[in-house]
Amino acid sequence: MELTVLAGGVGAARFLDGLVRVVPPESVTVVGNVADDLEILGLHVSPDLDTVVYTLAGVVEPERGWGLAGDTAGALAVASQLGGDDWFHLSDGDIGLHLVRTERLRRGEPLSAVMRDVAERFGLSIRLLPATDDPVRTFVTTEAGELDFQTYFVRRRHEDEALAVRYAGAEDARPAPGVLEALAGADAVVVAPSNPFLSIEPILAVPGIRRTIAARNGPVVAVSPIVAGRAIKGPADRMLRSLAGEASARAVAGRYSDFLTHMLVDLADAEDVPALEALGLRAAAGPTLMATVEGRIAVARETLRLVDILST
Amino acid sequence: MELTVLAGGVGAARFLDGLVRVVPPESVTVVGNVADDLEILGLHVSPDLDTVVYTLAGVVEPERGWGLAGDTAGALAVASQLGGDDWFHLSDGDIGLHLVRTERLRRGEPLSAVMRDVAERFGLSIRLLPATDDPVRTFVTTEAGELDFQTYFVRRRHEDEALAVRYAGAEDARPAPGVLEALAGADAVVVAPSNPFLSIEPILAVPGIRRTIAARNGPVVAVSPIVAGRAIKGPADRMLRSLAGEASARAVAGRYSDFLTHMLVDLADAEDVPALEALGLRAAAGPTLMATVEGRIAVARETLRLVDILST
Repeated sequence: MELTVLAGGVGAARFLDGLVRVVPPESVTVVGNVADDLEILGLHVSPDLDTVVYTLAGVVEPERGWGLAGDTAGALAVASQLGGDDWFHLSDGDIGLHLVRTERLRRGEPLSAVMRDVAERFGLSIRLLPATDDPVRTFVTTEAGELDFQTYFVRRRHEDEALAVRYAGAEDARPAPGVLEALAGADAVVVAPSNPFLSIEPILAVPGIRRTIAARNGPVVAVSPIVAGRAIKGPADRMLRSLAGEASARAVAGRYSDFLTHMLVDLADAEDVPALEALGLRAAAGPTLMATVEGRIAVARETLRLVDILST
Repeated sequence: MELTVLAGGVGAARFLDGLVRVVPPESVTVVGNVADDLEILGLHVSPDLDTVVYTLAGVVEPERGWGLAGDTAGALAVASQLGGDDWFHLSDGDIGLHLVRTERLRRGEPLSAVMRDVAERFGLSIRLLPATDDPVRTFVTTEAGELDFQTYFVRRRHEDEALAVRYAGAEDARPAPGVLEALAGADAVVVAPSNPFLSIEPILAVPGIRRTIAARNGPVVAVSPIVAGRAIKGPADRMLRSLAGEASARAVAGRYSDFLTHMLVDLADAEDVPALEALGLRAAAGPTLMATVEGRIAVARETLRLVDILST
């Protein structure tokens, strides 16, 4: 049994943390978002991939859901004192990873090769693939103009209304080795509960990925990142309202209408199930909150039950 | 009154720490060694310049004499876990400096401009000039072959006998802006108590520097880094024996015979004074140990008295 998961950052990492407790981690391939990667202080930072690694390795800062637990920040303090960029949080252990990644990328190694080693050295048994080894970067159009992702998200705290989203470089990007095979061959493809615009669609924008998923015969199941009209974290609800008319599981399903077959919504949104089924989906309401390990396991179980991979 | 000091790492930094307590720091220009600079984990590290900065800023680890006091090492721990180079000690705050420097160098700024800002942001009033903005790198020939400086010094703990020393890139290097003027115009040039082969001669190897010092009318005074046949720190004594016949103040003076006018030796080497004066130098014996601030001040005072800059 093979599962392939399209994944953004914190929400996806928590979902995966449940999933690997329900199925053998070796059976899971993650196709991760790289469109929020950035270069800062000369370091190549891959926030979403690192969040997946830290979470599955059990070293993530648990409340925030990203970064290393208990890490110091001495490097950033000195860099700041010297006038270096200090608006993006970089803790010291984190910088150790960024240094190794950046050096290997500069030598010409692809990101996928670097992250395979990083995942292995952090003791992970899942397969972690960036959607692409090529540079794809998200830009968000706001009333303040078009902003690069981290300016929109971190510097301006995603407070601007998103009027449009663009994935620069996507048209020229190629899927990383193994991505299309993992999407075509999986028993199920799972769209993790991540922001459609900022996490999932930049993956789908890499030529070949969306088409490969749409061409599947097997199930493609999404876990709704919206609970009772609100995102658990981040601006997904506001972006869905401004870019898709409403913040709901149905609006999320609408973003994936060309390939989605199943959808898990939160118990609070059980009333959406008939509408989703009217769209031709198989849908179910279940727990989707993942603050605890038990919650994460429950979400993973419900997701797999919905696509008949788990029967109990 | 203007003083220009040729400086290596720990010994020079401690000498300067005394000097700036005896004369106004604004009157001191440091011409620092960059031939032990290295690239590691993609970072440009300038060990000697940084040791001067940290020492004069009062943030140096006091026993060791280099690195930041009380600094953490989380980045290196993660880099090591991921298979990155971990043989060169890099603490976290240190990495903050290296990140800012490396990013600015990659953008095309000269090292001298970066270090001017670094010194200023660390609150220093001295002028800190790298000998050159161009790459000069020390290589040491040993029975194990020719080794780059940090392999010889750090990885192999300077245990190999040095058979020859070479400063790669020196012939094509140009003195950094202001270096020749500072050497020509100073009331006195001071050769700090640093290793002749590893700290001072790579500075002198930059075309124009040695000639400018030799053309001075005013004094050029060296503080001996050798006390009773031994180096306080590092391999200067063994290098002097293998490359200059003996480990003594006289052997050090012999390396600088074309420009040296004065020499301060340790009280333990008072018997060398007549031999140095026979070489045409003015010499004196005084305290040269710099473990304490009082010791550093005493050495600076003796040095300036010898060249008649201080009368008391």
